[in-house]
Amino acid sequence: MKYTVYTLFPHLLKPWTQDTLLGRAVEKGLVTVNLRDLREHANNKHRHVDDTPYGGGAGMVIRVDVVARALAEVRAETEPPDEVILLSPAGEPFTQQVAEELSSKGHLCLLSGRYEGFDARAERLVTRELSTGDFVLMGGEVAALAVMEATARLLPGVLGDAASHQQDSFSSGLLDYPEYTRPASFEDMQVPEVLTSGHHSNVIRWRRKEALRRTLERRPELLETAQLTREDEKVLEMLKTDLDLL
Amino acid sequence: MKYTVYTLFPHLLKPWTQDTLLGRAVEKGLVTVNLRDLREHANNKHRHVDDTPYGGGAGMVIRVDVVARALAEVRAETEPPDEVILLSPAGEPFTQQVAEELSSKGHLCLLSGRYEGFDARAERLVTRELSTGDFVLMGGEVAALAVMEATARLLPGVLGDAASHQQDSFSSGLLDYPEYTRPASFEDMQVPEVLTSGHHSNVIRWRRKEALRRTLERRPELLETAQLTREDEKVLEMLKTDLDLL
Repeated sequence: MKYTVYTLFPHLLKPWTQDTLLGRAVEKGLVTVNLRDLREHANNKHRHVDDTPYGGGAGMVIRVDVVARALAEVRAETEPPDEVILLSPAGEPFTQQVAEELSSKGHLCLLSGRYEGFDARAERLVTRELSTGDFVLMGGEVAALAVMEATARLLPGVLGDAASHQQDSFSSGLLDYPEYTRPASFEDMQVPEVLTSGHHSNVIRWRRKEALRRTLERRPELLETAQLTREDEKVLEMLKTDLDLL
Repeated sequence: MKYTVYTLFPHLLKPWTQDTLLGRAVEKGLVTVNLRDLREHANNKHRHVDDTPYGGGAGMVIRVDVVARALAEVRAETEPPDEVILLSPAGEPFTQQVAEELSSKGHLCLLSGRYEGFDARAERLVTRELSTGDFVLMGGEVAALAVMEATARLLPGVLGDAASHQQDSFSSGLLDYPEYTRPASFEDMQVPEVLTSGHHSNVIRWRRKEALRRTLERRPELLETAQLTREDEKVLEMLKTDLDLL
């Protein structure tokens, strides 16, 4: 997978591509990250990429011609991007499902703005707009990192154990089950007995039940679209009855 | 506002606190960011903070005793944290509303994990669990940055213009209206005439209508909880009729 990120602050993202899991994926040759400075396309000696908004108001807006020049550059490459993604709070919500879809692509171009965002005409130059959540950041860099991390970890060989992302939160539409490690006892808190029982099928059943319980308690709306077996439905009925009794 | 971030990779976050809008807030003394290495609390010479999960499975889990020692440290400070926030995909969804609530606090402690996350008992040591979205990252650092950026920019004096965040996406529960800047004409795309008309009240009305239109087209579910005036409702009816005619 190749990522090309346009940003006004490439040095913010640099350490993420050199160390950490993403950095190791780069070292292994599984991932390439090209960080590009949007200012290279300013076309003026002050390297200004933004201007005041038409119609007035606070903040600065990134110019559409700057975006167009940047995208002309990346689209002229031997392997042009399969998707050009503008990161914006007004975009389509980024979810695990979108991450899975994007992880099958060869080259993603991510466009991160600062200030008040991009001239709206930039939306017509991209293939997709994504939002990482219903909150406003200082810029799109955090969102670009989120997209890179969430997609790169799904690529074969990136996680140490190939199975590691199969049981992720959201991979079946549920929250993840709780994990425990040593010490078995800490202050007044013990590891659930089943996890130290050595009874593998009980562990699997318990984990699924706890994933269902967490989702029911914290994010019941996720159950509407989760992939549930008939056994899951039975467990959920039991959990609901338990909750009503409390 | 003071932020204390526990992470295994403090150097990933360092540049964000030195440059950019967040860095300028630090320089101005509006924000303090303490980056702490969770490994300082490993209590073993190999500085291991994690171990294999009870019950088997891929990945490594961060130990609860390590978290407890880190939190004992920050809670012993002269100004202990008002909230200790564990970043996890199983947490409460982080939204602009949560950002607004948190921005009124004095000290936020953010706990970022890597690997398979934290021992579930760590949840009982914090005041809150937050998730930045229904996707799985490589670690909580991106989420910690999202919380810092989204809350810090709401603090008085952090944005250049105090009004700048009043018209944000989500501040009234709607997506933001489209912004335009020079050039007025680019390829076949023009700035909407109203924005260059100099007619201030028309600009305001147009922007509100476009914010409503975007929200209706892209995220209609947000309209259910948005703060709408009677005028907004009328505009929405018109927009819906237009959409039906297409």
